Amino acid sequence: MKAMEEKIRKEGKVFPGHILKVGSFLNHQLDTAFLMEVGREIADLYKNERIDKVVTIETSGVAVAFAAAVELNVPVVYAKKHKSANLPPDLYSAIVHSFTHNTDYTVYISKDFLHPGEKVLIVDDFLAVGNALNGLMEIVGQAGAETVGIATAIEKGFQGGGDAIRAKGIRVESMAIIDEMTDSDIIFRPQDR
Amino acid sequence: MKAMEEKIRKEGKVFPGHILKVGSFLNHQLDTAFLMEVGREIADLYKNERIDKVVTIETSGVAVAFAAAVELNVPVVYAKKHKSANLPPDLYSAIVHSFTHNTDYTVYISKDFLHPGEKVLIVDDFLAVGNALNGLMEIVGQAGAETVGIATAIEKGFQGGGDAIRAKGIRVESMAIIDEMTDSDIIFRPQDR
Repeated sequence: MKAMEEKIRKEGKVFPGHILKVGSFLNHQLDTAFLMEVGREIADLYKNERIDKVVTIETSGVAVAFAAAVELNVPVVYAKKHKSANLPPDLYSAIVHSFTHNTDYTVYISKDFLHPGEKVLIVDDFLAVGNALNGLMEIVGQAGAETVGIATAIEKGFQGGGDAIRAKGIRVESMAIIDEMTDSDIIFRPQDR
Repeated sequence: MKAMEEKIRKEGKVFPGHILKVGSFLNHQLDTAFLMEVGREIADLYKNERIDKVVTIETSGVAVAFAAAVELNVPVVYAKKHKSANLPPDLYSAIVHSFTHNTDYTVYISKDFLHPGEKVLIVDDFLAVGNALNGLMEIVGQAGAETVGIATAIEKGFQGGGDAIRAKGIRVESMAIIDEMTDSDIIFRPQDR
């Protein structure tokens, strides 16, 4: 999505340690018109699939997931984060390792909101090593639902998480894939669209 | 908003301690079509005001704030929560007491995303004692911006937070105001709209 690449070039800020800050439009301030455009793009990419539900993870996944789900006309369910692994039995849960903070946390979704046979599109703001997305796929599997695909706003291609998921045969669409990132330049992976 | 009252009656679950669970549409699963309708109602209520920005607080405020901001065609900024009160100086912050969890936490917004003179609509999912909203108003004030008004999905009128804010002369619009809540019945405050 050219508009995402342009937005990152214009507003993104690169910090040491391969940190890309996009708080001006994606995960602190939300550029609503732009995110609705992203939602339309995601819906269009998956228009030939049956999607019953969009699943994401709090907090920064919620806005882009909501925009995509509005366009797909389906509900969102967002996984919540918890420090403890001790959770009540009415929840699906998975342990996720945070690469950024070097800690583990638990993500969970109530059993009331994911059901066997449902077709799920997983949406998130960032895809780096892919731990959060793998946790969400694990939860979708626990529910007996199916991950139809994944859509992310920004994939850090150089961290390999997206390609590892693609290698398992799961469709991953990222609005922009960053293959290299330095203080002075961002190199995007060419995509057909 | 009659549709909100009906939704609460149909899907809300009351638990001891005046807890109302609305995870099926508002703060775990998100009913996107319904929340966009809520966003349109909020935008319509504030259509005669200049609104530059919607401010909310993670996580559960984000969806309804996003929907309202799409309709108002303005950005959202969501305050983040932090356990520590020690935050860097490039943030506006306020300490909020959580009535539900009986702890204090800090909410913050980057100084990059709130500016002097901006007209702010504060949106949240719930209004009970009003501590989170008071913290957000404090942050808006720190920035030299102005709180034009508040909009919430569900106000627990019996907890008094909304009326205390109204008594200060600040406009508060809640899609539904619950004046009384028991296991068997929910009594809504009559509203003109």
